[in-house]
Amino acid sequence: MELFVERGYEQTTVADIAERAGLTRRTFFRYFTDKREVLFNGSERLQQTMMAGLVNAPAKASAIEAVAAALDASAGFFGPNREFARQRRAVIAAHPDLHERELIKMATLGAALAEGLRERGVAEPDASLAAEAGIAVFRIAFGLWVGEGEQRSFGEIARELLIRLKAMAAVD
Amino acid sequence: MELFVERGYEQTTVADIAERAGLTRRTFFRYFTDKREVLFNGSERLQQTMMAGLVNAPAKASAIEAVAAALDASAGFFGPNREFARQRRAVIAAHPDLHERELIKMATLGAALAEGLRERGVAEPDASLAAEAGIAVFRIAFGLWVGEGEQRSFGEIARELLIRLKAMAAVD
Repeated sequence: MELFVERGYEQTTVADIAERAGLTRRTFFRYFTDKREVLFNGSERLQQTMMAGLVNAPAKASAIEAVAAALDASAGFFGPNREFARQRRAVIAAHPDLHERELIKMATLGAALAEGLRERGVAEPDASLAAEAGIAVFRIAFGLWVGEGEQRSFGEIARELLIRLKAMAAVD
Repeated sequence: MELFVERGYEQTTVADIAERAGLTRRTFFRYFTDKREVLFNGSERLQQTMMAGLVNAPAKASAIEAVAAALDASAGFFGPNREFARQRRAVIAAHPDLHERELIKMATLGAALAEGLRERGVAEPDASLAAEAGIAVFRIAFGLWVGEGEQRSFGEIARELLIRLKAMAAVD
């Protein structure tokens, strides 16, 4: 990430990244399929963490509560260092192919959450609806969390957004 | 679309498409930037139609009601010919680059709906939440609507999904 910020994403080669990380090119490719994957390194672990949160939610939790548990579980990924997340976001926003990959990771995460809900016995279309609502909250929470001057933790923001969503749904 | 089904998406050239449509190559490129755009031809009109639905919702409509109006407005795009939509979906699902473009179109639509809600005076984060919920309903409704044996119209499905979402949000 340092290198992407210093030199620009295009100007940074796999050789540069490997050198900075103290890896050989060969070792780099054992960890990452390509340069893009450096930025999405955490996404598999994020999905596993959220799925664990979903699976471990109490059996009597509703679909939305189970999704809230998945969001709570993800909060550990968004620690005190918001600057890294901001830099990563800026690099992704500036490159359409990275933005596409981000959207695909989010769609994959949404499909996994829906599958996890079905395994908990949530019927369709509720499983898909709750999962997609969770992804929406996740994305919006992330956008707020990286905002300049934002003091709340990711977990706090996500919980407040879920409450807002419920309040809006209750109005009609 | 006929050609994509007959010959496969990769095997279909711009020249083939232009010939079938009775266009010259040059005329083709006046309408479409590339072969992929043939499949996403309607997405700009879809967005305009949904935005018009949003703008024309009663001034006192809540954010969710305004999104429901946008979904209602889109229903005209999903007429009796579900076979075309099924074929299109199959071509997109089989090609990651088309799937990426589909995700980007959805993200763009979501951003436009959120902007439209802000213009209606809906504050953040409610505008983004309601817009993203609308996109979730749109995508899930589409998936159900193209399902084999599905009899309900797109508009009926979308309305039922919104009701389910509200019911789920009310439970917690």
